Amino acid sequence: MSAESDFLELLRRHATDPAARGLADDAAVLDIAGRNIVLTCDTIVEGVHFLADDPPIDIGWKLAMVNLSDLAAKGARPLGALLSYSLARRADWDAAFVAGLTEALAEYGCPLLGGDTVALPAGAVPIFSLTAIGEAQVAPSRAGARPGDTLWLTGPVGDAGLGLVIARGDLVGPDALLAAYRRPVPHLAQGRALAPHVNAMMDVSDGLLLDAARMAEASGVHIVLDLARMPLSKSLLTMVGEGRESRLAAAAAGDDYVLLASAPGDLEKRASDVRLVAVGRAEHGHGLSLVDGDEAVPLPGTLGFEHGGS
Amino acid sequence: MSAESDFLELLRRHATDPAARGLADDAAVLDIAGRNIVLTCDTIVEGVHFLADDPPIDIGWKLAMVNLSDLAAKGARPLGALLSYSLARRADWDAAFVAGLTEALAEYGCPLLGGDTVALPAGAVPIFSLTAIGEAQVAPSRAGARPGDTLWLTGPVGDAGLGLVIARGDLVGPDALLAAYRRPVPHLAQGRALAPHVNAMMDVSDGLLLDAARMAEASGVHIVLDLARMPLSKSLLTMVGEGRESRLAAAAAGDDYVLLASAPGDLEKRASDVRLVAVGRAEHGHGLSLVDGDEAVPLPGTLGFEHGGS
Repeated sequence: MSAESDFLELLRRHATDPAARGLADDAAVLDIAGRNIVLTCDTIVEGVHFLADDPPIDIGWKLAMVNLSDLAAKGARPLGALLSYSLARRADWDAAFVAGLTEALAEYGCPLLGGDTVALPAGAVPIFSLTAIGEAQVAPSRAGARPGDTLWLTGPVGDAGLGLVIARGDLVGPDALLAAYRRPVPHLAQGRALAPHVNAMMDVSDGLLLDAARMAEASGVHIVLDLARMPLSKSLLTMVGEGRESRLAAAAAGDDYVLLASAPGDLEKRASDVRLVAVGRAEHGHGLSLVDGDEAVPLPGTLGFEHGGS
Repeated sequence: MSAESDFLELLRRHATDPAARGLADDAAVLDIAGRNIVLTCDTIVEGVHFLADDPPIDIGWKLAMVNLSDLAAKGARPLGALLSYSLARRADWDAAFVAGLTEALAEYGCPLLGGDTVALPAGAVPIFSLTAIGEAQVAPSRAGARPGDTLWLTGPVGDAGLGLVIARGDLVGPDALLAAYRRPVPHLAQGRALAPHVNAMMDVSDGLLLDAARMAEASGVHIVLDLARMPLSKSLLTMVGEGRESRLAAAAAGDDYVLLASAPGDLEKRASDVRLVAVGRAEHGHGLSLVDGDEAVPLPGTLGFEHGGS
């Protein structure tokens, strides 16, 4: 499809170790002395994953968060992180970035262990990468969804997407939405609580529709999502209302970092301390479809935000 | 000193976990279930760490090698690697890069486990990062050198430095030197054999003089290197002769990826299957000095290649 997916296909031929999970999961899971060691790496690029005038403290926070969210999706607790940092800005910009990164890592108990710092030639586009390592008791893949499962979300969708619109200055809206874009929160505690009880789990980073389609493909099931059940925040409802267009936009917006779990319908009872909303079901078949209550709804042309990654 | 070292100082304030080793070692070493898990991350940038017209297959090979060399320095065997890849070239360029990377990883038993792929905006400078994970029985730091130790090298220095000059087209020379620059080899077996018997170990990536000065500083000792004992390859001797200038240039050239170990003088007997050359000694005091046999030699203005990193 895209250059990214072609490249991923190329890498996949070489990533044949079971720990790589076919490069089709949020993270690799390595067996070390009988422990499930979870490894993930995410890279962010100016102009692609963040805006040039985003506050550097928030960019640092977000780099930590996208990786911690992958650990959350595998039910892991963080053990540490390595930073690959490109110096292309002023020292005060770098210091603010580090403040945001280390604040987020400290908040979620993830020590900074090492990395590499490189000087970029003048005019180069800033790019930052973090590798996080964690340990999980059970590390559910995104490929385990079974017909009959209920699809669950651990939080609202769409807030960060509207936050990006606000950050770009295209619309004015509540601070809570801007915060959802700039300061997403990883659902680590939820991931650990859910992991032993789910058949599949992943984080919703690129848009619920796109990520659910990926889960359906990896699991070999058909997933039906119900727009009527989309969990939407009060801030989002205040700004754009609860019409179908709003719910469809929320389901296709990226950067939410809630968890999508596929599990039997009694998950709510098994993980009673986790906020859960049932948003759909898995069936025999393949692909994704969308309903709004009893009414079938065609899939939008864009399911989410494709920017590569595994 | 440089922007990189200022930034490293900033990071160091936050990297207080013992596993981070004060960001002063080749790698982080994490205790997982009583195992020494070694983590390293290296980033290479076009125009800084490789030339724009270097063959992509060699750039891929080299990215694997710089990371595997860090594992070698900690006596680790590779468990896996994660790639952060920026798509900024043609598909055939990417395919050649992946061929070189995966050839090197396969050669040294390091499965590719995952990573992230990003599309760069037009005109961005290509940048590639790899995180490698390994396991060591003993993971010597670079901070353990003791007065009375002998300094040992596991191979010749200077070849890759001359190879770079040849690659740039500034001089004509033997293919073996070009290969030393483009296809360095990690001393993994040597690292594993030496680790239980050394007080300190690191890889020589930025130039022997610079790296030995770093070991002296980290260990709180004075290191004396003897130019008369520099191990030089036949190819290098053929090209530039064995005069002091040649030996000094070899000791300040980067990208050699041999190991520098500090250990008692009987290391040769304890690790008899490893090729070892004694090149100096550690004493009480601090800093680095240079001799040529019995004669003291002033340190050159540039000890090696500073391009950041930890």
